[in-house]
Amino acid sequence: MKSREIHLTAYPKGQPTADTFKLAEAEIPAPGEGEVLVVNKWLSVDPYMRGRMSGVRTYIDPFALGAPMDGGAVGQVEASNHPDFAKGDWVMSMHGWREAYVANGKGLQKLDTTHIAPEDYLGIAGLTGMTAYVGLKRIIDLKADESVWISAGAGAVGSAAIQFSKAMGAQVVATAGGSDKVDYCLSIGADAAVDYKAAENLAKAVKEANGGGVNGYFENVGGTHWTAALEVLKQYGRIAACGMIQRYNDAGAQPLPDNLTNIVAKSLKIQGFIVSDHFDMMPDFISDLGQWMAAGKVTSRNTVKQGIENMPAAFLGLFTGENTGKMLVKL
Amino acid sequence: MKSREIHLTAYPKGQPTADTFKLAEAEIPAPGEGEVLVVNKWLSVDPYMRGRMSGVRTYIDPFALGAPMDGGAVGQVEASNHPDFAKGDWVMSMHGWREAYVANGKGLQKLDTTHIAPEDYLGIAGLTGMTAYVGLKRIIDLKADESVWISAGAGAVGSAAIQFSKAMGAQVVATAGGSDKVDYCLSIGADAAVDYKAAENLAKAVKEANGGGVNGYFENVGGTHWTAALEVLKQYGRIAACGMIQRYNDAGAQPLPDNLTNIVAKSLKIQGFIVSDHFDMMPDFISDLGQWMAAGKVTSRNTVKQGIENMPAAFLGLFTGENTGKMLVKL
Repeated sequence: MKSREIHLTAYPKGQPTADTFKLAEAEIPAPGEGEVLVVNKWLSVDPYMRGRMSGVRTYIDPFALGAPMDGGAVGQVEASNHPDFAKGDWVMSMHGWREAYVANGKGLQKLDTTHIAPEDYLGIAGLTGMTAYVGLKRIIDLKADESVWISAGAGAVGSAAIQFSKAMGAQVVATAGGSDKVDYCLSIGADAAVDYKAAENLAKAVKEANGGGVNGYFENVGGTHWTAALEVLKQYGRIAACGMIQRYNDAGAQPLPDNLTNIVAKSLKIQGFIVSDHFDMMPDFISDLGQWMAAGKVTSRNTVKQGIENMPAAFLGLFTGENTGKMLVKL
Repeated sequence: MKSREIHLTAYPKGQPTADTFKLAEAEIPAPGEGEVLVVNKWLSVDPYMRGRMSGVRTYIDPFALGAPMDGGAVGQVEASNHPDFAKGDWVMSMHGWREAYVANGKGLQKLDTTHIAPEDYLGIAGLTGMTAYVGLKRIIDLKADESVWISAGAGAVGSAAIQFSKAMGAQVVATAGGSDKVDYCLSIGADAAVDYKAAENLAKAVKEANGGGVNGYFENVGGTHWTAALEVLKQYGRIAACGMIQRYNDAGAQPLPDNLTNIVAKSLKIQGFIVSDHFDMMPDFISDLGQWMAAGKVTSRNTVKQGIENMPAAFLGLFTGENTGKMLVKL
């Protein structure tokens, strides 16, 4: 069968454009012995993918040029010669950015869709939610009587983090860009929310909204948000840093004011992390999330674009703030 | 008896000058019931004192104006009406910046000077050494097969940290300002040392001297050292931040290049700390230090100025790099 797929044409400096990507078509063979043919139904776009477009190894290899990119994908088995998979099974894989693929079963995760929608495995019940969970539970070690600032609160990780923090009993102040996103943060439970684009002094605005300062900061943005966080955090504050989207496209990032002595004066702890180093927490995550969802404390929300040809637009939209919750492409 | 003492005249902006301080004289009464009269023999000057001259509460109250300042001091009991202290006893207190004082015994620590010189309790066997120990053992959690970068390697904390790191079996690269200090770092055991004032690209120079990159960074400097450290640290690197002397006098600190995404990309951990939060490690510290000193792995070195009138000069000398090892004033 034919499958359309997206290739990377070059490693962009700064902001990628539509020309960075090319829609191509491949012929997918019938599955051989021990193989399955999967038709993707949902594809994920994530900020970390920008790092893989740099041609430089960070914590993950760069994308190859002129070949389909990878990423999270949820699909259904169309044909199977593998004993563990049957036609109709829902599976999650890293074979994204394409409509269909043949695989030998390794790296395919069969999904239980009884209580969780298939696409949510790419979002709140997948790495996105797990990232929020690890950051709050292990890195910030958030306590019920504490307060936390969630940046990019209307984004995929951020909106999960707002809901999880509230489910854990903490006070939450969120930041986001624009009044619609601020409203969204409030609608999913944030006690206060600040439009960082409208704030003259971000640190002051967050402190005022929050009533004093925070014990934890969930860093998704970097740059000027980081600088503000060093001001807003209280003594013994903790920063969980899982991304700094403000700077990913910034070949020559702006210099920052140096307020690093806050780290010493307030005994702050800052930790960068990648969710895959913390997969030991997966059973706790699934257990807590199941309870929170059953109790109505956590719900999912996705921003959906249609069709493989819109993958580049969906990806680029992450950097202009088009998504509320998890950005997905439906095929 | 008469005692000369140093007062703070005003809260300086930027670099304090000789005018920031005033030599005054006080009359010390005879000790009353339950009190002791102590004559100080050694006084400590430390970078953290700059923070107390800002008039702003950080982790410690600011100095009062027009009163003797406080700080570490070692002296001998001259007269005692307290059952726990006898004339001739060596005691450590926070009643520094003065020649003599009367106290009720609280906050006085009697010193065992059998194996350790009295003045070393203000340096390698005191908070200075303990700070190095906590930073390496608990914050960086340095392993024997790892490598560590010690900044301000010829300073009090830095020179202790170099020796302790080597005693713990790690590889050490030190940075310091000027060839004399570099030589000193090497003489106390650093495997490599870099003159940061002569380095065009500090990160590159440290990487080359060290042969690749480090697992830990002991932050005493801040500013451009911090920026370089984010480059030099390897995956899962740790920063122990106990001071940032480059910025203490810098009312308008220079902006820094933003390379914070290293924190995420390399899963770095950064922790600011103050030694007093880690006094539970004191028994381990004294035990390890005793063994290291007995084995000749660790020695003390102090820079000594004479007389109470030279306390301001000794303090200001910390910021121009006059000291090698711990800066002390002998009375």
